Amino acid sequence: MIRLYHWNLDPAGRLVRLCLAEKGLGFETVESAPWSPHPDLKLLGPGAVAPALLQDGTGGRIVAVGTRAICEFLEESVEGQHLLPLHLGQRAEARRLWAWVEEGFEEVTDKLLTERVMQWVRRDRQPDSEKLRRGAHTLRGRLTFLNALVETHGFIAGRDLTLADLAAAAHLSACDYFGDVEWAAVPDLRTWYARLKSRPSFRPLLADRLAAVRPSPHYADLDF
Amino acid sequence: MIRLYHWNLDPAGRLVRLCLAEKGLGFETVESAPWSPHPDLKLLGPGAVAPALLQDGTGGRIVAVGTRAICEFLEESVEGQHLLPLHLGQRAEARRLWAWVEEGFEEVTDKLLTERVMQWVRRDRQPDSEKLRRGAHTLRGRLTFLNALVETHGFIAGRDLTLADLAAAAHLSACDYFGDVEWAAVPDLRTWYARLKSRPSFRPLLADRLAAVRPSPHYADLDF
Repeated sequence: MIRLYHWNLDPAGRLVRLCLAEKGLGFETVESAPWSPHPDLKLLGPGAVAPALLQDGTGGRIVAVGTRAICEFLEESVEGQHLLPLHLGQRAEARRLWAWVEEGFEEVTDKLLTERVMQWVRRDRQPDSEKLRRGAHTLRGRLTFLNALVETHGFIAGRDLTLADLAAAAHLSACDYFGDVEWAAVPDLRTWYARLKSRPSFRPLLADRLAAVRPSPHYADLDF
Repeated sequence: MIRLYHWNLDPAGRLVRLCLAEKGLGFETVESAPWSPHPDLKLLGPGAVAPALLQDGTGGRIVAVGTRAICEFLEESVEGQHLLPLHLGQRAEARRLWAWVEEGFEEVTDKLLTERVMQWVRRDRQPDSEKLRRGAHTLRGRLTFLNALVETHGFIAGRDLTLADLAAAAHLSACDYFGDVEWAAVPDLRTWYARLKSRPSFRPLLADRLAAVRPSPHYADLDF
């Protein structure tokens, strides 16, 4: 039995949900929003924040917190669909770009996504337009880099789907909910994202809805 | 044959050097400073930055860039000293705290360490005292958290040395070069660091010197 503490539009939680679904694992979810963490999290480890995964099995309980711990744990313990290539050099490249995505999108999450979400959480709050502007600028740079990668190889770290693709798709999908991704400027990335979106693992993410904030018109459109 | 592109006081390069030494691997080093990256790096992958590792062996060439790719590659491919526990739950905890260290020290590196280093690179430049102050404040918070972890377990992620310890020691040692770690406030962490410092893998780091900037008096002192 697997339980996942996460929040719908958190890119880190989205990566874990994609990873679990690609591995064909069923799981129950418990909501833990960044501004109101679930009280269980404190018990899982000092400083633990969502996403956090609990697995109870014959070998006892496994607790894994954070994308690095969770995705590597699933890759090590679950047979089936590989999300890291078997060749050591290709594995290294997939991990490099997975790390690049997580580090490179930190500022986008901090400036752009968090600002959009907090505007929704506290309705009376005005968004910080300077933050939004800087977040959007950073996002454009990241999109250009990712577009060049998928133009060369088809996927981000080579010719196969890896955790680098799922991480990038997790981040972009959250920004796309608010219509912040300028797809027209990055046609190869758009093609790549259309392929990712069509995977069964993506369906639950496309069904996510915030109360009173509709997603951008093309958010769940597979042919956007 | 292993070649490492790195810069002496970069915490990421320090983690890789510690990891290689703990694994008992010999390697040659090539300097690549953040403000003047070695031209080879461009050839290793789009957007590649130090630390970067090249291994030529019977199986061909492996290129691994960044701490996540390099340390996981070494852990997967080299027998001997484990730097991640074998038990899946303990591995997850080690990876969680390794990631916590790398994310949690980003601001310390950005505000405090980079400011110290750039002051050395461009001698005519005045340090930004507000940045230094905020970096020092963040560092104090990180020290308190790490102190609580080692007080409980002896090492950061449990009772054994893991990549989480090497990552924390890599970051702290770079700050310690400039005397920025207030060891007196964190006695358990100080004991832990004294043990880390005494490991043979640490010796090359303690011998690092910047021209014209002496390290803090206790930097290389094992009994500080």
